[in-house]
Amino acid sequence: MPVFITAIVLALSAIPCCLGIWPIPRSLDSGNQILKLSGLFDISINFTNPPQDLLDAVTRTKYSIQTDQLGRLTVGRGSSDSTAFGSAKTLRTLMLALEPSASGAQPIATEAVVALDARDEGYSLSVPSDGSAGVVSANTTLGLLRGLSTFEQLWYTYDRTIYTNYAPLTIVNDSPAYAYRGFMLDTARNFFSVSDIKRTLDAMYLVKINTFHWHITDSQSWPIQVVQFPELAQAGAYSTNESYTPSNIQDVVAYAGERGIDVLVEIDTPGHTAIIGASHPEYVACYLLDWITFASEPPAGQLRLADANIANFTAAVLAAVAETLPSTMFSTGGDEVDMACYAADGPTQMMLNESGRTLFEALDIFTSTTHGALHALGKTAVVWEEMVLEYNTTTLRNDTIVMVWISSDDAAAVVQKGYRIVHAPSNYFYLDCGAGDPIGNDPTGNSWCDPFKTWQESYTFNPLANISSAQVSLVLGGEQLLWTEQSGPENLDSIVWPRAASSAEVFWTGDTLPDGFDRVGNISEALPRLHDVRYRMVQRGIKAIRLQPEWCALRPQECDG
Amino acid sequence: MPVFITAIVLALSAIPCCLGIWPIPRSLDSGNQILKLSGLFDISINFTNPPQDLLDAVTRTKYSIQTDQLGRLTVGRGSSDSTAFGSAKTLRTLMLALEPSASGAQPIATEAVVALDARDEGYSLSVPSDGSAGVVSANTTLGLLRGLSTFEQLWYTYDRTIYTNYAPLTIVNDSPAYAYRGFMLDTARNFFSVSDIKRTLDAMYLVKINTFHWHITDSQSWPIQVVQFPELAQAGAYSTNESYTPSNIQDVVAYAGERGIDVLVEIDTPGHTAIIGASHPEYVACYLLDWITFASEPPAGQLRLADANIANFTAAVLAAVAETLPSTMFSTGGDEVDMACYAADGPTQMMLNESGRTLFEALDIFTSTTHGALHALGKTAVVWEEMVLEYNTTTLRNDTIVMVWISSDDAAAVVQKGYRIVHAPSNYFYLDCGAGDPIGNDPTGNSWCDPFKTWQESYTFNPLANISSAQVSLVLGGEQLLWTEQSGPENLDSIVWPRAASSAEVFWTGDTLPDGFDRVGNISEALPRLHDVRYRMVQRGIKAIRLQPEWCALRPQECDG
Repeated sequence: MPVFITAIVLALSAIPCCLGIWPIPRSLDSGNQILKLSGLFDISINFTNPPQDLLDAVTRTKYSIQTDQLGRLTVGRGSSDSTAFGSAKTLRTLMLALEPSASGAQPIATEAVVALDARDEGYSLSVPSDGSAGVVSANTTLGLLRGLSTFEQLWYTYDRTIYTNYAPLTIVNDSPAYAYRGFMLDTARNFFSVSDIKRTLDAMYLVKINTFHWHITDSQSWPIQVVQFPELAQAGAYSTNESYTPSNIQDVVAYAGERGIDVLVEIDTPGHTAIIGASHPEYVACYLLDWITFASEPPAGQLRLADANIANFTAAVLAAVAETLPSTMFSTGGDEVDMACYAADGPTQMMLNESGRTLFEALDIFTSTTHGALHALGKTAVVWEEMVLEYNTTTLRNDTIVMVWISSDDAAAVVQKGYRIVHAPSNYFYLDCGAGDPIGNDPTGNSWCDPFKTWQESYTFNPLANISSAQVSLVLGGEQLLWTEQSGPENLDSIVWPRAASSAEVFWTGDTLPDGFDRVGNISEALPRLHDVRYRMVQRGIKAIRLQPEWCALRPQECDG
Repeated sequence: MPVFITAIVLALSAIPCCLGIWPIPRSLDSGNQILKLSGLFDISINFTNPPQDLLDAVTRTKYSIQTDQLGRLTVGRGSSDSTAFGSAKTLRTLMLALEPSASGAQPIATEAVVALDARDEGYSLSVPSDGSAGVVSANTTLGLLRGLSTFEQLWYTYDRTIYTNYAPLTIVNDSPAYAYRGFMLDTARNFFSVSDIKRTLDAMYLVKINTFHWHITDSQSWPIQVVQFPELAQAGAYSTNESYTPSNIQDVVAYAGERGIDVLVEIDTPGHTAIIGASHPEYVACYLLDWITFASEPPAGQLRLADANIANFTAAVLAAVAETLPSTMFSTGGDEVDMACYAADGPTQMMLNESGRTLFEALDIFTSTTHGALHALGKTAVVWEEMVLEYNTTTLRNDTIVMVWISSDDAAAVVQKGYRIVHAPSNYFYLDCGAGDPIGNDPTGNSWCDPFKTWQESYTFNPLANISSAQVSLVLGGEQLLWTEQSGPENLDSIVWPRAASSAEVFWTGDTLPDGFDRVGNISEALPRLHDVRYRMVQRGIKAIRLQPEWCALRPQECDG
């Protein structure tokens, strides 16, 4: 069957070795000609009144291409390319074009927070090899931004010449396989500065991650200053310097929005709230009691959910934060509610007895109160999986988004109940696992979610495992997560990057590479591209770790086993 | 038995909670009074003509105490201490005293490279609570330096007051349980700059690690410029910028020596030498052949050991490097010699046939040649365990130091052969384990030495397990190691610190805490002190990772399970 064989050869050639685009577009046709970037290179816009954040994105893209100074990952770092520089054409212009069907140019930040089912990140990109203008076209400014992030990854520098060696390149209608592609950071176990978060957003932008899930509070600290409830951070932040002012929050949200990133803030309730006891001890059951008995980790303490006043207080806190945020989503958490704590808490038991309610019934009312406050603001609630699978919560709205974390095996059960899910499974996507135990006297130091989740393991995740075809649309996407019991600013970049780029490609590219081959098992094809984006991150000041000796990084496939 | 109980209470009180000295001295008596540091604090020296590096150490100590600005790890970060500032005494002077028996003041750098069995790091320290002068006394300037590193760890800052709250403090004859306390860095898989190494030496100094084992070359790169053999680095370094000039080496050695650290350079032979093929392909068997068949990791290639010319070349290279170094030790490596490679290598087989020798006999002669060159320079050879346990090497001198790496279980077999050992077991001390697989197409990404070695695991290491009492003196000490297949400057600090401090205490303090209790199982006592030294490292610009949420770090034992 020679025709079939030819087809395979052609298909394989669709991803030339080491073309460093991450995530790889869903359609791609690229050549192997050198194309230089003109010293006068500019990016033009084909419509009037472009939003300021698109102009800023253009400025950033031009700056990045000039300053990345990334040598191509091959022996000689591009010296073998340089012989072709003399005869190569030069690219002078990239044009950004909104499709005629587009209904006016909205700011990127506006498009970035459109509800997931309507968000449009698609784009097309052509880079001719003859020096004629390249074009990014899209229906939205958000799509144009995604095209820019692809375009940025084409360029290498050798001896002051900026060039690509993958011209001509054509990408038609690249768009994400899944609408939600996130990264979660816990800023409560240990604190991270705004600049740490911005640097993380820079890396997220580069790999088209579109949601920053900000697990902003937990039992250990309350770093968010809430104007209406100043006591929470005053008593609950590690220090004033280790808390986020309202303008810090807006700064992060604006920075994210310009980079096409939605900020999903989580204030976890009713569990993971011991620190509220620092200012409101009467609101918290089991406050600082023996954590081994009453909590999944120290310190113990969770909101007295059966108390209507406390539910109202909680709803008011959530609303006070949510109303300042442009996202349509807000997470109320809901994981690891400790039943032993409530069983032992006198006030809770008294209120349950008086009302004749079970704990789950009280939790249902508590959730209804807090979610009601969010719905009144037009927000879609996000919760962890126990709210659906363990607590028998009946009042959740159908549009609630459920994050599956305990195990990837739990995803099917959640979608069978009709809820939309975000994959956040500890057995694939928890970046903190495998690096020890934060419990103070454990002589082994093993973590509950050993082993370490390698990028390869995360990369093989199948978002549709055990999901029926009728329920595929309920799978919104997924995210990798950093819980920070044992992390801080010191290791943020190195524990997150490039590993968190794994899921970025899982959920953008989907199961199939543009050459038609399966993406999932194709570690060997992915690794050189992952190296490339890692080295590019390092050039941009993000301290992503190395995945191999440089000897291997410069010699794709030679270190395969 | 009230007397016995009282003794225990007294003993327990010998290490007050959170006294942040790491490693903990072998004898210690400390109080709980506040003592402030005078704004005019100075360190005086009681003898004439002190060596310049001791004067420099004094300057650094004064600078560190002024600039650490470490808040004590307690809620309020020292605010509760401040109420006692008014009535507290002030320390104006620390005196450095050489014991009358000391035979003149040698430079620290000289004392730091004295042969292990004669090296003297002991010191005594007293810090009275009444404001009278503190004293460090020792037989050597190296001992005085160790006393300074202890003294530095006493001081906290609250609102511009520098103070300790552990006065009076007396340490009598603190000295290491083991002479060799090392850290190994592989600078060949990925490159590290001189400033990366110096920052690492700063951290090593702080925890009294006295040997920098510099695994400087390997199959992937040859970053050391050897004057007599310039072709090795010209062809074998990743780039000129990623290589060490002779003055870089001397800079590192001098920086280490001033900090009491001996630099043990390793040029691994005859295996782990593929990169020599980049300049001398005729010297290397299996050069760049299929690594799965011919090497333990890519790339394949090792010196043709049966060739006398190549043995002489190797000896000349080792001698050219060794003669520039003050250490009495030099490592020729000797691990993972690949037998399949030599069996398949035509030139090697021809030479073995011609000489009538077995491979092991040829290896014996090769080793005799290389070690002979080192002995001629007065160096003691260091080798990995296979040289003794697997290759039947008969010409090793009795004074050879053997590093046990494959498993801690192998230590007993090496000492039974009469060799001195350094513990470097992969199952306790390999800092790279558990973070993935550098082989390019492994879908699991699991590493051969999973899991991650937690600080707790390393801390429980028993140097004398299965060692008979007659052979205890053969146990020189141990080291933690960073192989850098998946590490680089980006994660150097975070993957090494504070974990590598574990073995620093294992081998300084030994099995018994100064209160008489076992050190080994006492994770709960160790953790607050390890937090303290970690936070201090961060203040000094070393990005050591967090071990717990800050909530726990400020509340010793409250996060124990």
